[in-house]
Amino acid sequence: MSALIAKMLTSLFTLFAIPSFVAALWPMPRALSTGSTALKLSSDFVIHLEVQNSPNDLQSAISAVYTQLHNDTLQRLVVGRAAADSVAIARASELRFLTISLTGHAVVRSIEQEAVEPYGSRSESYSLNIPHDGTTATLTANSTLGLFRGLTTFSQMWYSSSSGKYILDAPVSIADEPAFPHRGLSFDTARNFFPVEDILRTLDGMSWLNTLYWHVADSQSFPLEVPAFPELAEKGAYSETERYSAADVQRIVSYANERGIDVIMELDSPGHTTGIAFAYPEHIACANKSPWATYASEPPAGQLRIASNATLAFARELFASVAGMMPGTMMSSGGDEVNLPCWEDDEETIQDLSINNITIADALNQFIQEVQNVLHQAGKTPFIKSDMILTHNVPVTNDTIAVVWQSSADATSMAERGQRFIHQPSDYFYLDCGAGEWLGNDVLGNSWCDPFKTWQRAYSFDPFANLSASQQQLVLGGQMPIWSEQTSPENLDPIVWPRLASGAEVFWTGATLPDGSPRLGANATSGTQAFARINEMRYRMVDRGIRAIALQPHWCVLRAGECDLDA
Amino acid sequence: MSALIAKMLTSLFTLFAIPSFVAALWPMPRALSTGSTALKLSSDFVIHLEVQNSPNDLQSAISAVYTQLHNDTLQRLVVGRAAADSVAIARASELRFLTISLTGHAVVRSIEQEAVEPYGSRSESYSLNIPHDGTTATLTANSTLGLFRGLTTFSQMWYSSSSGKYILDAPVSIADEPAFPHRGLSFDTARNFFPVEDILRTLDGMSWLNTLYWHVADSQSFPLEVPAFPELAEKGAYSETERYSAADVQRIVSYANERGIDVIMELDSPGHTTGIAFAYPEHIACANKSPWATYASEPPAGQLRIASNATLAFARELFASVAGMMPGTMMSSGGDEVNLPCWEDDEETIQDLSINNITIADALNQFIQEVQNVLHQAGKTPFIKSDMILTHNVPVTNDTIAVVWQSSADATSMAERGQRFIHQPSDYFYLDCGAGEWLGNDVLGNSWCDPFKTWQRAYSFDPFANLSASQQQLVLGGQMPIWSEQTSPENLDPIVWPRLASGAEVFWTGATLPDGSPRLGANATSGTQAFARINEMRYRMVDRGIRAIALQPHWCVLRAGECDLDA
Repeated sequence: MSALIAKMLTSLFTLFAIPSFVAALWPMPRALSTGSTALKLSSDFVIHLEVQNSPNDLQSAISAVYTQLHNDTLQRLVVGRAAADSVAIARASELRFLTISLTGHAVVRSIEQEAVEPYGSRSESYSLNIPHDGTTATLTANSTLGLFRGLTTFSQMWYSSSSGKYILDAPVSIADEPAFPHRGLSFDTARNFFPVEDILRTLDGMSWLNTLYWHVADSQSFPLEVPAFPELAEKGAYSETERYSAADVQRIVSYANERGIDVIMELDSPGHTTGIAFAYPEHIACANKSPWATYASEPPAGQLRIASNATLAFARELFASVAGMMPGTMMSSGGDEVNLPCWEDDEETIQDLSINNITIADALNQFIQEVQNVLHQAGKTPFIKSDMILTHNVPVTNDTIAVVWQSSADATSMAERGQRFIHQPSDYFYLDCGAGEWLGNDVLGNSWCDPFKTWQRAYSFDPFANLSASQQQLVLGGQMPIWSEQTSPENLDPIVWPRLASGAEVFWTGATLPDGSPRLGANATSGTQAFARINEMRYRMVDRGIRAIALQPHWCVLRAGECDLDA
Repeated sequence: MSALIAKMLTSLFTLFAIPSFVAALWPMPRALSTGSTALKLSSDFVIHLEVQNSPNDLQSAISAVYTQLHNDTLQRLVVGRAAADSVAIARASELRFLTISLTGHAVVRSIEQEAVEPYGSRSESYSLNIPHDGTTATLTANSTLGLFRGLTTFSQMWYSSSSGKYILDAPVSIADEPAFPHRGLSFDTARNFFPVEDILRTLDGMSWLNTLYWHVADSQSFPLEVPAFPELAEKGAYSETERYSAADVQRIVSYANERGIDVIMELDSPGHTTGIAFAYPEHIACANKSPWATYASEPPAGQLRIASNATLAFARELFASVAGMMPGTMMSSGGDEVNLPCWEDDEETIQDLSINNITIADALNQFIQEVQNVLHQAGKTPFIKSDMILTHNVPVTNDTIAVVWQSSADATSMAERGQRFIHQPSDYFYLDCGAGEWLGNDVLGNSWCDPFKTWQRAYSFDPFANLSASQQQLVLGGQMPIWSEQTSPENLDPIVWPRLASGAEVFWTGATLPDGSPRLGANATSGTQAFARINEMRYRMVDRGIRAIALQPHWCVLRAGECDLDA
């Protein structure tokens, strides 16, 4: 934490003192000071970009802010809406200029370049100051990525009224930076397919998040067109139109990177790979073998033949080819839910193991090592699913980032092994839980990760729970996954939004609120505050074209706190 | 059950014998016989309407079938899709004509008129015969409403291919009629508002259902423009644009009626009425009183002042005015979740009780009696919520139809009282359950009716459970409600569809499948069949513009049964 932020936290943090006139920002900035003066945006408001040779994507980001300020229609969420503020608006000074600049010796690079920097060297911090008297506002940062975050905050502060955009809480002073470097959405496009436009719209909603962790293929389909293996998608996609071409991937990655979001491709392996069998059945053990439940966690069964030299060669080339499609410095080989009987009952694997005189465990270790080698050779830091380490004890390289997913309790086990990790606990973050069973003939079954994970549940997650101070250094952040067994373009927005915003605040704002108070729980005020702020975030999303669900009756939304349990 | 249907049930019901080549109809017709011959729809296919002076809405329904047949793109849900059937399609005969006629002495009336007939005199039965050899298909019924149902079946049978529309299971012979007269959706437009277009799209999805039970107003808002009391909506709607004008209501009712759907307005009372207080605070006891949980089941508190003569007069005029807006013969006065402390702590109510020397129970009885009188005078059969009878023991008229909602177990209690009723059990049918708590500061709370009600749960409902043969006569059908505390236009389709289709089959097809086997449960085959059919229904809905959610990975959908638990 920078000295400036630390200073603001102690001296300026006044948010809860004036609950009715607060910038309804989401996520909560790390340090925020607000006043109580109304300020209008001048009708000829201008953003001055004081950056030499400014990159195109920063200029586009500024244009996008103008467009948002022009198109947004969201009025403040109080009884009477904007009319309730008409007197204050009429008296307000007008803000004419926002000046944007990089600090000191910052090298000018595009947002796109900054967004894919390794975590240690990525800077997302910014300072935003908006005076109350109409004098020039300023936004400064160490990087164009930081400026982008600051522009996002700026664009989300303003309310609409018939006399233009305004805020009620000038002066506003923010010094902000994320608590964790990794803040993501894990997105499954294999169980059901999502057109590119759905992914782009989702990226639009991911302001404050910085990672699209793309679970692109699985046992049900292989929609990714891999340059070295075109037949994978030709035969493995659900249809000709349900594929991601190299151009589609490029479009998604550029769109993401220009918005400060890195794309980490997960090529799940050696399990969850039956989609490969449509084109290359020779590499898949127990493909479509019945009963599937003996051989896999989901139908259809199938895993890469990890003991086969031919399959190892195929896997090396596959990972190298996919790695080459992505500009980022990270990639995941998945690794969850490996099933031993699948290999134990596979004639060819038995033969391969015997020829090489190795066990399945040896073969698994070798497979992971080979994949990690390929990723390193391609310049990628490997991600791996936690059960590969915690259940199968597969050795991984020190730089590997584990995705702890089965249970939040696994975080301590991972920390005890000294491995860096991100949180993706099924008991807090899985967006698809609680919608019932999708397997046939499990007539009254529930989803395996019941119940539904509410925004409050996700919001209550403590990334440092049960971790010592030194273990806390291993936590790089977290992500909420949307699995697509029961998700499709029809319910994508409603199932993801606004719940994913909980993850954004947990990993941007940190283990506690900036004043050190718990995010939810005993602190009733923070619960009411958070509800008011996430409601605003939701209405703003709807205003901007994302079909985020209502969390309360509109009556409650207009009366923060009046629908509290004890009100 | 007609003799024809009974005969077909015993002699012709062959559905489960040929599971792979079956008309994937939803709901299951009461009597269905299919063959295994492919049949194409001729490119100059024509529907001959042999009805003299045929009403406009029947002609429109026929046009709509042409449009659907033209626009539908859904290919059969098997591996290879339409290509899997290319040989069969190439050899198929072509169907050139469908002839539509009314039986014997049927009087020709519009669908709109038939749709609002009282239950005893409404006929929805039809017979549809499609020969395998291309000779003319026939659709006959006793009423235009029956013809409409038959057209719906016809339009939902055909698959798309590059060589046109086809089926694989000709000849098809269907004799169909609903098991229950009331098959509905209860739709809450008060907690959050829904534009008219959302309601019309929902009606589009409600083929096979015949009732929109419109919970139009509640304590949070009063969006209905009532002719006698314009201020109710002027002051009680969330905003100027979030109101239903008389023209809007007329548009919704006509759209519904022309599609065989009656609209039953529920004006919930005497509880759930604080929305009235925006315009007429004098009629509401304990309005917005804190703590709300003492005085109401939801914020804000408030109930009609049932002991006040002025309020009784207001209620009479209000019900008469709303009744006058609706062409149907049924209307509901609601009646759920009445709170006694609200009146006990209300000074004015205490005074009114004292003046009239009556108890709250007396006042409640009188209120219900007056409302029922008004409804009868307006020609409406009254609906009432079950707790008014079961909890408060309020006497109602014999013709009253109770909505049994708190628990499925309440059905027997209602039957013991000899009251006619419909099923709306919260433990089977509530579409909004399982999405978490919407009250603030109930941080990790769940919805009161947890868990999520899956389509399988709703589908497993037995409308005759624990009822004697004579008690079964009291069951008029059922409806699934969508409450809108956490529902808004953004998630309307995903939360309603395709789950509401479960209700359609339960109350169209009946307490069991046509062959007498249970709808789900021990019968594994029926579970697989139902999943395949509801999947098809869902894909057909998406094809027709309704955002129904995916129930399975597409891989499973294309391979019926292969994702069964034991496959």
